[in-house]
Amino acid sequence: MPARSWDAEVDVLVIGGGCGGMSAAVEASAAEADVLVVERSGAIGGASAMAGGLIYMGGGTPVQKACGFEDSAEEMYKYLVAATSPGADLAKIEAYCEGSLDHFDWLVRCGVPFKSSFYSGMLSEPPGDDGLMYSGGENAYPFNEIARPAPRGHVPQMPGADKVIGERGSGWMLMKSLGEVAARQGVKTQCDTRANELVVDGDGRVIGAVVRSFGTDSVIKARRGVVLSGGGFAFNDDMLALHAPRMLGHSKVGTDHDDGKTIRLGQSVGAAVKHMDATTAYAALPPLLVRSIIVNASGSRFINEDQYFGRVGEAAFYREEGEAYLVFDEEGFESVPPEEIWGQRPTWVCETIAELETEMGVPAGALEVTVDFFNRHAEHGEDPLFHRDAKWLRPMRSPFGAIDLRQKPGPTSPEHRDGPGYSYSFFTLGGLHTSPEGRVLNTSGEPIPGLFAAGRTTSGLPAGGYASGCSIGDGTFFGRRAGGSAARST
Amino acid sequence: MPARSWDAEVDVLVIGGGCGGMSAAVEASAAEADVLVVERSGAIGGASAMAGGLIYMGGGTPVQKACGFEDSAEEMYKYLVAATSPGADLAKIEAYCEGSLDHFDWLVRCGVPFKSSFYSGMLSEPPGDDGLMYSGGENAYPFNEIARPAPRGHVPQMPGADKVIGERGSGWMLMKSLGEVAARQGVKTQCDTRANELVVDGDGRVIGAVVRSFGTDSVIKARRGVVLSGGGFAFNDDMLALHAPRMLGHSKVGTDHDDGKTIRLGQSVGAAVKHMDATTAYAALPPLLVRSIIVNASGSRFINEDQYFGRVGEAAFYREEGEAYLVFDEEGFESVPPEEIWGQRPTWVCETIAELETEMGVPAGALEVTVDFFNRHAEHGEDPLFHRDAKWLRPMRSPFGAIDLRQKPGPTSPEHRDGPGYSYSFFTLGGLHTSPEGRVLNTSGEPIPGLFAAGRTTSGLPAGGYASGCSIGDGTFFGRRAGGSAARST
Repeated sequence: MPARSWDAEVDVLVIGGGCGGMSAAVEASAAEADVLVVERSGAIGGASAMAGGLIYMGGGTPVQKACGFEDSAEEMYKYLVAATSPGADLAKIEAYCEGSLDHFDWLVRCGVPFKSSFYSGMLSEPPGDDGLMYSGGENAYPFNEIARPAPRGHVPQMPGADKVIGERGSGWMLMKSLGEVAARQGVKTQCDTRANELVVDGDGRVIGAVVRSFGTDSVIKARRGVVLSGGGFAFNDDMLALHAPRMLGHSKVGTDHDDGKTIRLGQSVGAAVKHMDATTAYAALPPLLVRSIIVNASGSRFINEDQYFGRVGEAAFYREEGEAYLVFDEEGFESVPPEEIWGQRPTWVCETIAELETEMGVPAGALEVTVDFFNRHAEHGEDPLFHRDAKWLRPMRSPFGAIDLRQKPGPTSPEHRDGPGYSYSFFTLGGLHTSPEGRVLNTSGEPIPGLFAAGRTTSGLPAGGYASGCSIGDGTFFGRRAGGSAARST
Repeated sequence: MPARSWDAEVDVLVIGGGCGGMSAAVEASAAEADVLVVERSGAIGGASAMAGGLIYMGGGTPVQKACGFEDSAEEMYKYLVAATSPGADLAKIEAYCEGSLDHFDWLVRCGVPFKSSFYSGMLSEPPGDDGLMYSGGENAYPFNEIARPAPRGHVPQMPGADKVIGERGSGWMLMKSLGEVAARQGVKTQCDTRANELVVDGDGRVIGAVVRSFGTDSVIKARRGVVLSGGGFAFNDDMLALHAPRMLGHSKVGTDHDDGKTIRLGQSVGAAVKHMDATTAYAALPPLLVRSIIVNASGSRFINEDQYFGRVGEAAFYREEGEAYLVFDEEGFESVPPEEIWGQRPTWVCETIAELETEMGVPAGALEVTVDFFNRHAEHGEDPLFHRDAKWLRPMRSPFGAIDLRQKPGPTSPEHRDGPGYSYSFFTLGGLHTSPEGRVLNTSGEPIPGLFAAGRTTSGLPAGGYASGCSIGDGTFFGRRAGGSAARST
């Protein structure tokens, strides 16, 4: 890299103003570093500000205790290892569980409000301002046998009436708080500014970045370190084609700046990537899901429907290639609270399962066998195949309905892979390989001097599976560590 | 990179002496380049020399024609796109199919012998010296409906009596021929030599490599280009943990030099990687498999058992997390030719399916339902669920047996991930992102000047699925292109 003339100098340059970058900025500035955050869009917040805002924390937080739940770092660890395997990052999970109470306190000190009330409903986030919920199937098979169940989805308090799902939720409340603390601590923020290149010195140390704002490049020196935290790559079809081709053409969660730019910046200086194929996908809404059976193209069930709806979606998408159906009876459908049906309508309604098979295109008799087996055991409150909880078990009776979750960009029709497959929504979980301290590692597993990362730009807690609250959870937790490590780096 | 004093200079430096590297060397030397192959082990050959040696070719080769099979580049393309989706590399597949007849001729000119006889048995490679076989389920559902079936697994002729499966097969014959041609064309080969570092000039062009032989480093200048072709990464647990964690602890196919070193060399200079999660896995031997049903932990079938055994293995491993069983009856087991049973023994033998369920730990009644449904339709030569061919359909009758394919490094017990899970054998399919010309691409999709790659160091034809013959097929085909591109690069 030729010698540069610097347009600006800071101690720590943070690229990306979502929850990872802002947590890094807060912690670096608390360590007396002079910090600049550059953000591509017109305001800080990133995908976090649009999210439901769940933060996965446990081990006995004040909210858990006030709501009457016992928890420990050990049980949280057992759950997270099971839920994120294969590929669980044991060192990160250990640090995360041991540091969870401290992290809760830090968020509270940052002004993030949590109401000590438990949401026991089935929606994916509380409709009101409750502060705690189950968010990863901890209380369903198999996790309820692996670790003592406790709800760990902590939700920043925001009056339900102020929420606009998918646009302004509790994640907005979190980012508002982090932004205010950062500003108070003197963090500078420069929006509408995109980082295009890292600057590396002759020894391979990252010492700055070339950023562009309204068509003008400037070169910013980072005396102590650069923190990459620009989100995932769900909105970059070229990267999806390389790493997660199944997702092409599906509905995505995030902002269109989730194009993997900061992952590629890391790779350009020799960073390793990790679990780039990992994504989470979800399809059906849980209030109807737990009152249905979900079956594949052979009419067979493949998971307990009271599991975390993201896990059900992953099973439907990965195992069954999206060829799945929700089957229910009238009584089940009608028992979903009206405000929780969200416009879902049966694709087909039939008097008999045999008719439904014909409509669905499932081989004659195959779904009948499944429903008979399910009903025979549901009668006794049992689900020998998948251990769905007895409270969600009763025999299904005519009339029946089904919702078609199939999507057609399948393995045999790549020419349709950008087609209308919108039953599933997903985001990416893979990214740069980082240490638990937030250092970016090269392909020999050694830290790249001067380079740090956090959030969905990295491979964090979720790898082989996901739980709601893990993205903002590890974004803020390891964002703090990345910012602190950068501030202390010389 | 500081200025170097060169210990040697060549036009093209090839790193790795397997089928990709040797094909590159042959083609580069044919283009008048001065070529050096460095190989880590004591002799050229790599994993290719241990392999069954199948080469996936079609479009109407002389062997296909002599055996009475019609084929075309179009049908071959349709099959390969379907079999390797999602993530199929359409540009590579197109080049591969269009160039297949020429590639066959090239191999023959290199002295690779092919006998014009068709092997119609079920083993994964011909026990004798037959030259052609189905090797990817082309004649089974769903591929038989997607493209006109033709056998495309071409096997270099080697007398069956000379074969030692897994040690010296037809792949040995291929590598012997390529090695002889290379030597005749003046290619230099330096064994026991490992490449540890690429040398890059100030403009980012790869201009050589630092190699180590018996403890001594030398720096070799490559005037035109470096070709990376050092195999996959099945034998590198750190890389498996990053990219394909399910595979940890399982039996691997390859050599212990398949540690991803040449992939990491590419990454160290900014190369993109592709489909790093992709692997192929197989478990059951086809002669018994087609006479059994394969069921999951719920006792349900999940694929037609007459599909390519690699595809069945991938379904069992990925979809069912390895929790699969082969279930057969005495008549089926006894009808496997004795020389094709390979020591497989039932894990359990029972008079009734109900007893078998108890032994297997499948919920009572679940397997009975599956066998009843299968038998009812098999009676009429039908398999409405998975379209297994009628010639492999007949009702199963007492006594029954089953083979346990479960393996226990599962998603809930990462501490056992290096445990004894040896039912499945696999190798990796992901690697460097290359163009159809064999150029290594960076994360912006642009060629890295002076850098080329081929074989399992790259992501080649197989991505979302595999067929036998694709590895040596694309290794030799795109190896030639990489070598030719390097020789013409200035």
